[in-house]
Amino acid sequence: MKDIKKVNIMRVKGDGIWEEEDIVVREYPFTIYVNDKELITLLCSPDSLKELTLGFLYSEGLISSLSDVDQITIDEERGISYVYINRIDPFNEEFRGKRTITSGCGKGTVFYNVIDSFRSKKIEKPMYVPADKIKGLMKEFNENSKLFRETGGVHSCAMCNLDGIIIFKEDIGRHNALDKVLGHALLEGIDTKDKIILTSGRISSEMLIKTAKRQIPVIISRSAPTSLAIEIAQKLNITLIGFVRGEKMNIYANFPSVTF
Amino acid sequence: MKDIKKVNIMRVKGDGIWEEEDIVVREYPFTIYVNDKELITLLCSPDSLKELTLGFLYSEGLISSLSDVDQITIDEERGISYVYINRIDPFNEEFRGKRTITSGCGKGTVFYNVIDSFRSKKIEKPMYVPADKIKGLMKEFNENSKLFRETGGVHSCAMCNLDGIIIFKEDIGRHNALDKVLGHALLEGIDTKDKIILTSGRISSEMLIKTAKRQIPVIISRSAPTSLAIEIAQKLNITLIGFVRGEKMNIYANFPSVTF
Repeated sequence: MKDIKKVNIMRVKGDGIWEEEDIVVREYPFTIYVNDKELITLLCSPDSLKELTLGFLYSEGLISSLSDVDQITIDEERGISYVYINRIDPFNEEFRGKRTITSGCGKGTVFYNVIDSFRSKKIEKPMYVPADKIKGLMKEFNENSKLFRETGGVHSCAMCNLDGIIIFKEDIGRHNALDKVLGHALLEGIDTKDKIILTSGRISSEMLIKTAKRQIPVIISRSAPTSLAIEIAQKLNITLIGFVRGEKMNIYANFPSVTF
Repeated sequence: MKDIKKVNIMRVKGDGIWEEEDIVVREYPFTIYVNDKELITLLCSPDSLKELTLGFLYSEGLISSLSDVDQITIDEERGISYVYINRIDPFNEEFRGKRTITSGCGKGTVFYNVIDSFRSKKIEKPMYVPADKIKGLMKEFNENSKLFRETGGVHSCAMCNLDGIIIFKEDIGRHNALDKVLGHALLEGIDTKDKIILTSGRISSEMLIKTAKRQIPVIISRSAPTSLAIEIAQKLNITLIGFVRGEKMNIYANFPSVTF
């Protein structure tokens, strides 16, 4: 299914008014069933649905590796993902009891408890990133975002190393875009411990937590972080960089990891 | 509690690097207890918490008027809202069974079922809005957003009539900002049927649904709508206008309600 949809709009420019065809971003309800029970409905862009399913389940702590998944079937037409996992029962009280809705553009996680994040594992292996590389990666990242230029309605997320972008995904939700990237890495068996996450969106606590769960040492955004994201990054030794625009950037956590 | 927090950052500009104090937007975990049970944790900006609580409960369908609320107590220090309602049990299966996570910057609603939205009540009384008024309201709206100018990390939402802005709220999440506005209207007994919603953020299905539930006939954004938001607006006779910037705007639904 296409990520975009054609609609007829009335365009107004000064005193001019005319009807014309425009392109908007598609918002697609996507329901995940786990072991034959409905877990959640995500509102997303209708691509990389297998990656989104896996990334979401991992971020929520329902799986910790591909081997936890026995089967995954996507029904794109009906917007449903049927997953069979052999690890934990997502419907037990442990998960029912943890419902958090995030502030983040993207989505709230239903089961996550923010306070838990401070107990997450610290980054063991630091990664040093030259400031010039960061500027170059963000430039490459911005040039990749075709859907945003078309619709102005999506967020981009990428996983990269110092040589460039390895995975690039777009979604109406920035949390979905990150889960798609993380799900893709899981599918392809890509080691995340020496990678960098780039996002177009604001970095809230949940973006940080998803990154920390994969032991990714660096997260970079072209926009702002929140106070809680900075606190978690400092606590877990994650390098957090925001407002990377042209020759400028702000380093919010783990200063020494950026080299000049 | 302040909506912002001071942090020390490393600022990079070209070859210059220096440490300085910066202001970031505060992300505040806020847990709502209903009838002594934990309902949800929202990640939000720590102001208008009573309005947020009421707006959220209304948007989720847990209350339909102030009279459904027996008592509401905010513990700002601990980030908790204790609410006692006399209407429905939010923990029954009807709600447990409806978990949707939205794509929207702001939050996902845990209980909402998107498909239900197409069964929502249509707007009965159309509202006609002169295009020039829309440009003027957006100009006033943009000038109001102090916190955004300080941090670049928040969304604004306002309720207004043709004479100007009546309620203005900001939050790290655009859904929270809208719930704060709607909660304020509920507290003050403001009739929403002849009002306009202005938002800085993208209009996803949930923004539309929250607006529709209050029978608000017009929603206006300076950014993009999604396909699903447009479909719901068309179905419910809600005027949906996006990309209002200077002399330009796009009308996506209910064209005749905008006058020239």
